Amino acid sequence: MSEVITAVDAVDVRFPTSRELDGSDAMNPEPDYSAAYVTIRTSGDDEGYGLAFTVGRGNDVQVAAVRALAPLVVGLPVADVLGDLRAFSERLTGDSQLRWLGPHKGVMHMAAGAVLNAAWDLYARREGKPLWRLLADMSPEQLVGLVDFRYLRDALTPEEALDLLRRARPGREQRQRDLVARGYPAYTTTPGWLGYTDEKLVRLAREAVADGFDLIKLKVGADQAADLRRMALARSAVGPDIRIAIDANQAWGVGQAVGRLTSLAPYEPYWIEEPTSPDDVLGHAAIRRAVAPIKVATGEHCHNQVMFKQLLQAQAIDILQLDATRVAGVNENIAILLLAAKFGVPVCPHAGGVGLCEMVQHLAMFDYLAVSGTTQGRVIEYVDHLHQHFVDPVVIRDGRYVTPEGPGVGARMRPESVTAYTYPGGPQWQPGR
Amino acid sequence: MSEVITAVDAVDVRFPTSRELDGSDAMNPEPDYSAAYVTIRTSGDDEGYGLAFTVGRGNDVQVAAVRALAPLVVGLPVADVLGDLRAFSERLTGDSQLRWLGPHKGVMHMAAGAVLNAAWDLYARREGKPLWRLLADMSPEQLVGLVDFRYLRDALTPEEALDLLRRARPGREQRQRDLVARGYPAYTTTPGWLGYTDEKLVRLAREAVADGFDLIKLKVGADQAADLRRMALARSAVGPDIRIAIDANQAWGVGQAVGRLTSLAPYEPYWIEEPTSPDDVLGHAAIRRAVAPIKVATGEHCHNQVMFKQLLQAQAIDILQLDATRVAGVNENIAILLLAAKFGVPVCPHAGGVGLCEMVQHLAMFDYLAVSGTTQGRVIEYVDHLHQHFVDPVVIRDGRYVTPEGPGVGARMRPESVTAYTYPGGPQWQPGR
Repeated sequence: MSEVITAVDAVDVRFPTSRELDGSDAMNPEPDYSAAYVTIRTSGDDEGYGLAFTVGRGNDVQVAAVRALAPLVVGLPVADVLGDLRAFSERLTGDSQLRWLGPHKGVMHMAAGAVLNAAWDLYARREGKPLWRLLADMSPEQLVGLVDFRYLRDALTPEEALDLLRRARPGREQRQRDLVARGYPAYTTTPGWLGYTDEKLVRLAREAVADGFDLIKLKVGADQAADLRRMALARSAVGPDIRIAIDANQAWGVGQAVGRLTSLAPYEPYWIEEPTSPDDVLGHAAIRRAVAPIKVATGEHCHNQVMFKQLLQAQAIDILQLDATRVAGVNENIAILLLAAKFGVPVCPHAGGVGLCEMVQHLAMFDYLAVSGTTQGRVIEYVDHLHQHFVDPVVIRDGRYVTPEGPGVGARMRPESVTAYTYPGGPQWQPGR
Repeated sequence: MSEVITAVDAVDVRFPTSRELDGSDAMNPEPDYSAAYVTIRTSGDDEGYGLAFTVGRGNDVQVAAVRALAPLVVGLPVADVLGDLRAFSERLTGDSQLRWLGPHKGVMHMAAGAVLNAAWDLYARREGKPLWRLLADMSPEQLVGLVDFRYLRDALTPEEALDLLRRARPGREQRQRDLVARGYPAYTTTPGWLGYTDEKLVRLAREAVADGFDLIKLKVGADQAADLRRMALARSAVGPDIRIAIDANQAWGVGQAVGRLTSLAPYEPYWIEEPTSPDDVLGHAAIRRAVAPIKVATGEHCHNQVMFKQLLQAQAIDILQLDATRVAGVNENIAILLLAAKFGVPVCPHAGGVGLCEMVQHLAMFDYLAVSGTTQGRVIEYVDHLHQHFVDPVVIRDGRYVTPEGPGVGARMRPESVTAYTYPGGPQWQPGR
């Protein structure tokens, strides 16, 4: 009997982060960072782990979406799945009935990503490699073979992608030594949550600089006077040489964004993140033209590769914020890295949440080794909570991500954390906690 | 005690349409037309009905999404909900945690639309009016007050919308008499499903013309030779004076679409619908520039008003295909009608499926009476199946929709149909059927 997939389990895991206002911003005043946590099981008693990140209510809908994919997966031979992860990706995103619920967006698309990433996790564990090395060890032909070019060819052809990957090969061994020795640059959002007091903001901003970060991020977009006050406080706390990015979390319309950013310009924000609706490609382009040299960044809500393609085609962004669980997993993120490289736009991944740091670091490191070939202008977001729930928590040293060496994609949670925070039955969610 | 909402029920209703290949197209070879069917119940023993249309698998996820909204709704005073449907819409689409699952797209957004439309249904029933008349009787100020302009102002301001609605008022009584007397123009997709034989295609195309239709639609996008053969057959069956629209259901990339349409051009297709990814605003614009005078149409998968805004700003479409259940209900569809009027693009609604004809006709008729003020170049899709399951089924006469006079939004299904087709427990889904 050949080994088959026997189960796709999904668990509703929620952390009560709203109790401390960690993660509070203009759109998310009280998030409970959560995950639809996925385990693929095989008849060979093996497992792979993936997740979709959400912010609380509705995590049950995300779990339902993963469960809707299970019948497409259970019973498949493991060798077929791992031997053709492109075909597996299309099976998850291309089902003719489930596709209607997107297509390629929202709950169903994130569910496909969680399941696909669990298969990648299984694959990487079997190879005994962290995802970043598994990908970096693949040939350009293998990597291009993972991508669905159907809707991309007007911006990037398979031949161009192949050429781009081949050109990135020289120097890879040296870059890998450098990566392992020094890690990958990070920035921190820890000081800047909207719900924090001014005192906490100033204290955490100074601590961030002392910890080696040279880029911090502040949430803006609620009250205009508060934005100006907080930005002034942060600038005077860190001085002129530390970059301060700001993040409006979609709070503004296009014209409003331009007005607000003009008022904040004297404090020299490095980038403005999510100034308006994440769907508004043309709006981002208009804002970018109006507020230069402030850079425009987006991506954590950019729902698929077709949207990223357009953000690049329209010259709407200076910085592409890759997310590990918003799109349909590793394959689509490879497509997005290739698109960014084609257009010469640096990728600075979105992270934080639950497991996003653990997962997305692999993609950024793969980008450095095999796609863009540089860390110039690139930095991964870092937020310092919830890492203790992961089997391989990220390690930050001197403002940089230390290269992870454990096998897998980084999504594996500690079993006791899953049990404790399962919603609504887990002990952490009982009355009195 | 004031009357409150006591329940938001959602039922998984599926019709086994795949058994006959009704509804088959390039992306949906075997759909089972389905609905997450929503009933809002009140302590005054009143009810309102809404639905989200899906094509089978995953309808359970759509139901889960509706149920996730119920806690935001149950307990609200009915007077508050019906007295401020704009606020109710924002409650459904703006919840800070559920919003993460979109935002404003996919399963959660359709769920918000189904619940909001159920509230509109309750409201219209109490007023004793069909939705089209309820809306047409509102003042321009009331209508503008229903719209969320946060992300629209760069394309349409509230003042412009108000002006547009005021300019549409003269002649409204005359148009309403005309509408009631003659109905609203329709076109039919019945002949053109991809799974039908050539003989069935030719027979149904001739029947459509005999029934009074002057526009029919053919599915294309699978095999190129078959597209050419079917288009030639259809053209010779109906002659040169009947318009033939074609629908690729997203099958092509941008360059591929241009190539395929060039080969079909000799048969003079009237419009090409969904030539590529529904997210690809810039791709639609490129295709439109390349294939004129063939018109470009899209909308049934256009997930929110920000995407429609961009399709219009980018001059990407000649025809806007409004859908009753893809976006967040009546309010967002009013915004989309206003955007279309501002940009002078005719709205030709998508229909078919389950209840889409019954629902979307109200919006097109409202558009005629109070927004665009014309039916010139406008036509509502018609497909002749599943209407028997609705309490107020659409009536088509001489190729036109007869004005519905029953109160409500059109979503109310016959209770015996809901029972019979409930999935998976209903009698129609038992083995042997």
